[in-house]
Amino acid sequence: MRYKITISYDGTHYSGWQVQANSTAIQPLVQSALQTALRHPINLSGSGRTDAGVHALGQTAHFDTDQEIGRLLLSLNALLPVDIRVLKIEPVAADFHARYSATGKIYHYHLHLDPVMDPFVRLYRHHVFGPFDLEALQEGAALLIGTHDFAAFANQRGTPCTDTVRTLRRIDPILQKGGLRLEFEGEGFLYKMVRNITGTLLDVAAHKLKPRALVDILESKDRRNAGGSAPPQALFLVQVLY
Amino acid sequence: MRYKITISYDGTHYSGWQVQANSTAIQPLVQSALQTALRHPINLSGSGRTDAGVHALGQTAHFDTDQEIGRLLLSLNALLPVDIRVLKIEPVAADFHARYSATGKIYHYHLHLDPVMDPFVRLYRHHVFGPFDLEALQEGAALLIGTHDFAAFANQRGTPCTDTVRTLRRIDPILQKGGLRLEFEGEGFLYKMVRNITGTLLDVAAHKLKPRALVDILESKDRRNAGGSAPPQALFLVQVLY
Repeated sequence: MRYKITISYDGTHYSGWQVQANSTAIQPLVQSALQTALRHPINLSGSGRTDAGVHALGQTAHFDTDQEIGRLLLSLNALLPVDIRVLKIEPVAADFHARYSATGKIYHYHLHLDPVMDPFVRLYRHHVFGPFDLEALQEGAALLIGTHDFAAFANQRGTPCTDTVRTLRRIDPILQKGGLRLEFEGEGFLYKMVRNITGTLLDVAAHKLKPRALVDILESKDRRNAGGSAPPQALFLVQVLY
Repeated sequence: MRYKITISYDGTHYSGWQVQANSTAIQPLVQSALQTALRHPINLSGSGRTDAGVHALGQTAHFDTDQEIGRLLLSLNALLPVDIRVLKIEPVAADFHARYSATGKIYHYHLHLDPVMDPFVRLYRHHVFGPFDLEALQEGAALLIGTHDFAAFANQRGTPCTDTVRTLRRIDPILQKGGLRLEFEGEGFLYKMVRNITGTLLDVAAHKLKPRALVDILESKDRRNAGGSAPPQALFLVQVLY
């Protein structure tokens, strides 16, 4: 039987979802808890990576087992550190694939705009100082919606990504206590794409860049033309859509 | 000029408000930041202590200075660690006293009742497992409202407290994501009183104690008859009333 598993984690103390040399990643911890609970080797295949320090409210993955999974959710949460929680385990079709069956992803990026940081969310916000032009940010964000070659907003990872065309469905700024969050929804995202877009939009909001400049940056397909990468601690993978 | 200062802090990494031997407390950090910013000795007098690990959304204190306080709030927040934030500084009458002028205090105690903890609030909740009878808890809480000798719910501190009569105005359970919070409002609270009442009410909710037993515990005036102290990390000093 194939199962889909939904996981929430506080990424503060982890090197990301995927295993890397000399670091503590989330995927191997969950996979090893599954192996302990089910007593056989497991291959836990995620919807995609999250970077070091990035959080998840609903990361998904799939695995196969013929064991009964009656109390598996409780067992996994007893085995895992408290900053990684399994929210749901559900049977899926044999051809379900956490990565290839996904039709989209939702990320939230949390900006704190108030001059005084809230101590209770300090680990989960990017504190932005100085003038912040929300209208300019929205104007810039609108130019990125749709299907584009996002090479200018993608970092390179080991093996270069050859297909950098992605469809971005929305970037919505939603006001919340202390600031706002940028809600990103797209069919898929390139490596560091959300953080690179956010960093560039922050340059627009700070009037370091005109909204129209985003068109030129997109067309250049050159990462060096976009803004810096916004820091990881304010980024949440909220939902993987199927 | 006398000023009232309102402070929020995440108590996770502190030994409490007040200085203790070999430990990092909050009051001396804020007092020392004030001295650095104002360049003269300051006596920062708080509304009362909070214990090690307890948080504050609105702790208050007062201090005197003849300096201009124009950018003092920003200076203090630049000098203080990010888990301590100054929210407000306001001029008050010369006879204002953070402790003696207070007419009441509001504390919230956050209970997580869902079997799966939320990783993002794990540092600020008490995870309660097993059956939870909210009606019994409410019945027990109602018996504590009013003016009583709360000696049975007070821990001893260095010098014993001779007057243990206090007025409790309300204990309201308010449902929130993952569980509920107990909102306490009273004229004043004895040492560990909120946590001792909470621990005892949790025994009532778990059917280890009948609601009516709270009357006998109160009348006994003996700390050994009440329940254990609920852990500190779920307790917030929300507001000091004047």
